[in-house]
Amino acid sequence: MEDIQVAAQVTELAYALDTFYFLVMGALVMWMAAGFTMLEAGLVRAKNTAEILTKNVGLYSIACIMYMLCGYSIMYPGAFDGGLFQSLGSIGTGLLTSSDNSAADVIASGGDTYYSGLSDFFFQVVFVATAMSIVSGAVAERMKLWSFFGFSIVLTGFIYPVQGFWKWGNGWLNTDGVTDAVRFLDFAGSGVVHLCGAAAALAGVLLLGARKGKYGKDGRINAIPGSNLPLAALGTLVLWLGWFGFNGGSQLVVSDVENSNAVALIFVNTNMAAAGGLISALLLARFWFGKADLTMALNGALAGLVAITAEPLTPAPGVATLIGAIGGLLVVASIVTLDKLKIDDPVGAISVHGVVGIWGLLAVCITNPDASLKWQLIGIASIFAWVFTASFVVWFILKKTVGIRVSEEEEYEGVDLGECGLEAYPEFTTAE
Amino acid sequence: MEDIQVAAQVTELAYALDTFYFLVMGALVMWMAAGFTMLEAGLVRAKNTAEILTKNVGLYSIACIMYMLCGYSIMYPGAFDGGLFQSLGSIGTGLLTSSDNSAADVIASGGDTYYSGLSDFFFQVVFVATAMSIVSGAVAERMKLWSFFGFSIVLTGFIYPVQGFWKWGNGWLNTDGVTDAVRFLDFAGSGVVHLCGAAAALAGVLLLGARKGKYGKDGRINAIPGSNLPLAALGTLVLWLGWFGFNGGSQLVVSDVENSNAVALIFVNTNMAAAGGLISALLLARFWFGKADLTMALNGALAGLVAITAEPLTPAPGVATLIGAIGGLLVVASIVTLDKLKIDDPVGAISVHGVVGIWGLLAVCITNPDASLKWQLIGIASIFAWVFTASFVVWFILKKTVGIRVSEEEEYEGVDLGECGLEAYPEFTTAE
Amino acid sequence: MEDIQVAAQVTELAYALDTFYFLVMGALVMWMAAGFTMLEAGLVRAKNTAEILTKNVGLYSIACIMYMLCGYSIMYPGAFDGGLFQSLGSIGTGLLTSSDNSAADVIASGGDTYYSGLSDFFFQVVFVATAMSIVSGAVAERMKLWSFFGFSIVLTGFIYPVQGFWKWGNGWLNTDGVTDAVRFLDFAGSGVVHLCGAAAALAGVLLLGARKGKYGKDGRINAIPGSNLPLAALGTLVLWLGWFGFNGGSQLVVSDVENSNAVALIFVNTNMAAAGGLISALLLARFWFGKADLTMALNGALAGLVAITAEPLTPAPGVATLIGAIGGLLVVASIVTLDKLKIDDPVGAISVHGVVGIWGLLAVCITNPDASLKWQLIGIASIFAWVFTASFVVWFILKKTVGIRVSEEEEYEGVDLGECGLEAYPEFTTAE
Repeated sequence: MEDIQVAAQVTELAYALDTFYFLVMGALVMWMAAGFTMLEAGLVRAKNTAEILTKNVGLYSIACIMYMLCGYSIMYPGAFDGGLFQSLGSIGTGLLTSSDNSAADVIASGGDTYYSGLSDFFFQVVFVATAMSIVSGAVAERMKLWSFFGFSIVLTGFIYPVQGFWKWGNGWLNTDGVTDAVRFLDFAGSGVVHLCGAAAALAGVLLLGARKGKYGKDGRINAIPGSNLPLAALGTLVLWLGWFGFNGGSQLVVSDVENSNAVALIFVNTNMAAAGGLISALLLARFWFGKADLTMALNGALAGLVAITAEPLTPAPGVATLIGAIGGLLVVASIVTLDKLKIDDPVGAISVHGVVGIWGLLAVCITNPDASLKWQLIGIASIFAWVFTASFVVWFILKKTVGIRVSEEEEYEGVDLGECGLEAYPEFTTAE
Repeated sequence: MEDIQVAAQVTELAYALDTFYFLVMGALVMWMAAGFTMLEAGLVRAKNTAEILTKNVGLYSIACIMYMLCGYSIMYPGAFDGGLFQSLGSIGTGLLTSSDNSAADVIASGGDTYYSGLSDFFFQVVFVATAMSIVSGAVAERMKLWSFFGFSIVLTGFIYPVQGFWKWGNGWLNTDGVTDAVRFLDFAGSGVVHLCGAAAALAGVLLLGARKGKYGKDGRINAIPGSNLPLAALGTLVLWLGWFGFNGGSQLVVSDVENSNAVALIFVNTNMAAAGGLISALLLARFWFGKADLTMALNGALAGLVAITAEPLTPAPGVATLIGAIGGLLVVASIVTLDKLKIDDPVGAISVHGVVGIWGLLAVCITNPDASLKWQLIGIASIFAWVFTASFVVWFILKKTVGIRVSEEEEYEGVDLGECGLEAYPEFTTAE
Repeated sequence: MEDIQVAAQVTELAYALDTFYFLVMGALVMWMAAGFTMLEAGLVRAKNTAEILTKNVGLYSIACIMYMLCGYSIMYPGAFDGGLFQSLGSIGTGLLTSSDNSAADVIASGGDTYYSGLSDFFFQVVFVATAMSIVSGAVAERMKLWSFFGFSIVLTGFIYPVQGFWKWGNGWLNTDGVTDAVRFLDFAGSGVVHLCGAAAALAGVLLLGARKGKYGKDGRINAIPGSNLPLAALGTLVLWLGWFGFNGGSQLVVSDVENSNAVALIFVNTNMAAAGGLISALLLARFWFGKADLTMALNGALAGLVAITAEPLTPAPGVATLIGAIGGLLVVASIVTLDKLKIDDPVGAISVHGVVGIWGLLAVCITNPDASLKWQLIGIASIFAWVFTASFVVWFILKKTVGIRVSEEEEYEGVDLGECGLEAYPEFTTAE
């Protein structure tokens, strides 16, 4: 066998390993769809469970289709100009072709082309679905199903990809375009994914209003407990697992010593941040409310995960634990505060993904010497401003045309019967 | 280090990557057992839940044991003649030995021997369990547990492997044996696995009859809603995830540019087909029944997955979405039609895996120029004829000897108490 | 490209593949946390469900933090002396640094340094959590939440690592230290993980006493059925999947023909042992109790998994099935026996992980010629003696200080309200 042949085979093998790694990580992120679905199903009331399930599986499907049709091309214009999905923008011919890197090109690149373009699409598409999943929880129990789906189309096909382009498509938030000096840092998406989802959710919640009975006329806040906490715990653990793919895959490459070490550190830090967030939220709830509040603990774990997502690579594991733990404290305080502001978020999504997403983006400055507080703040402000404003406009148009809120009667009866024509638990008699 | 040593190490490394990939894909397929279990547990009534759980975990175990004892040897006679499981047919000595490819043989083959024989067994054995899982849903709520297990033994040890051999064991459905011209095409098993399971289920359902109360004397069809829809949604998402292994693993190799690109395209297409099927079924149900029927949406996603399984590699992603979407429409129409024919399938398994499996096999002709409609039809007809007939005989013998249907009283009380001696939800009071 | 460069790249690629494999296997083991959580949530009564969920997510987090702070350094002192987590023992500086193998060192080692140190930490840390998860089930429905967490700190930070060091840290149970002759064999932890967890649980149960009403004054044993069997089945299937990582990852290397064949055989044997255990337990329950008891079948599968964990590599698949099947018989007999001894273990954890763990360690002698019955017995005795004694002391101190058992009233009302201030299923009315 000639040397050059072996060298080419090694290049192909590295490409194959990176592609396979990327697909496995992507599959874990896809699994997060099940996590959000179970989490939200567990935290709403029984009478609204089938509808939240429908929203979750529906939004995932819409995200995949819209991102294929136009989102990916908006976010990564290079992919649009040639090669993969080259003409997806022009529906009619675009859906009928797909291409990927040829072996000859990969070998000629000497490893610079390191994975399949389609594996990149797969990884990116499950990220979009994650962002949209954040919204469904916040507007649960009172939003019209089909208006929600209408919003999903716009967010996943347009709003998300625009700000995604700013950072990951190498837009103005990423570099100055001249010297390529790095600006805003967001490793795996505390901003691009989580803050984005939370900003869209906040806009929706403000236009939608609180659930009936949540805030009493006397200023009293009524707890509306989740109907199935094992599902909520399962959802959290699914998300925890899926997050290894979310953060671990964002390294993009695994095929040498440096990169595989990086992926390992990311796995460790992701896990430690979740553990830190869970424990700190559980302790804070214990001292504040007197009880070991399970839902706060679960939100604490998710907060830890969101907090470390902006930078899971530069902290040491102990520091990652602390970054997560601060996220856990923040999420409890934020949930209580939003309730005082009468912003009704049944699952705490705005707190977990928005408030803690901002914390994660700021915390990058603690461990990554390349970060600048100025650009982190600019990134936070611009992502929030864009997504909130654009979402608000879309929600507003929906509200003024088809409406976004179910009737009072339907809300009282439960949206399951009204929207889906069936019940999630038809046999289990429920307490009023 | 000498060149030849490096070349040998590269060959070993490719073998290791392909084996590891195959095991990970197999683990995802094994996970589909949990998907079927949750899906079926969610779609039956509470009083029949513990029994359907028992059937699912039991059939998986039976499938593994029977396929090891004889199924694998029937399906892949080459594996029987020497090497792996060489004498498994002759129980007594066979179970005591196992062998796999030696490093020397792998290196000498120059990469032609590209993965571990035992990883192949692992991947194949979880496929058999998938086929059998299809049956349990269709016969739910009225079939005797031990008769079902009896049938499982025959299907997984004999009926499935025979037709599996026809195609994947390089039998007459695969090539003409002389010129090796390709005949029937079924990439990952829309026919060999899904149609097979559906045909066996149909034979059982015809001999078993409908559940009491399903079809009124006045011709009215009574809906019997599933008792726990979050479990059904979870099961669907588990299956969705597992299907990346089912289709992605069927490429068999990942270790070079061409193959890893292929696996990436398969992942994308599998995901898009499921999304397309979910959305089309949800829309059709919305316009037909007036409601966003969650169970139809879930079956639509599964239909999309079944539809793309026969050929996930040649369609572009947009086309894969459409193939899945047509599957989603077909499954809704088929479920309604089977009900009109009084063929009672509590979970819609015959429609999802049988009707849509046929669609998937026909759709190969749209995108794969190697396909011939004639051989696709021959494949469909021969798999259905063999599995349906053989299954009918086995079900019939069981019916005439030990019986296949529980007593009317046991059906009324629920099979959980009668068969398993316990209840799935002993504390939740249930509405009559 | 020069030869030496290619050889170095191949070494890096093998390191990357092994690290990636180890991380994927570790993620599967982390997933076992969800398995234990669902299993235990399904097997307790509704009124104690939120608390067992809290215990499970809490103990996982505590295990991660304590193992990072001191457990890993105790178990692998080499990791403490330099390199990874070098000064984790001295909190303050230690948590602020982490290091891993450099590419130069890996290449210089010629492949002897075969994976990332941090991937090792990740894999090990999820093992500790597994051991602790075993305890929570056995003490369910009556133990104080915070006392349980107190015990978790000691077990995961100290008790487990000490005996882990004995075997896997190359302590006295592993070799004689002079000739490096092998002593106690425990491939993936039937002893170090499962017997350890069971011994700690037994000590707790003995000091805690049985649940009120479990054992009548007339000597009658009252069954207290699990409240949600789909969750128990789901948990079992999650554990089954996760166990591929538990055993498959314990091979540590996958990057050549021999090791990838080994991992494949381990996957097959792990699967077959679970199948064997499930079927044998189901059959024994059928003949003994007259019914196909689902919970016994599930425990049978887990018993099969525990039984094969001590040696999943030397048995042929048929033998692995039998080793698992014997585990399945033992677990049924053990559960019945413990009940007669009035040792109240709500989920059967002591039987599954303790009794069958011992069987697994003894069964090593059947298939591995390197095993000695003497050293297997010494290993069993020393692990049990250390963990049971140390745990007993800790539980005893907790009992005499803060107390370990909730009040009779709280036990009657359910620990959910008392400990967590919420209910797992607030809307589902429950039968008394």
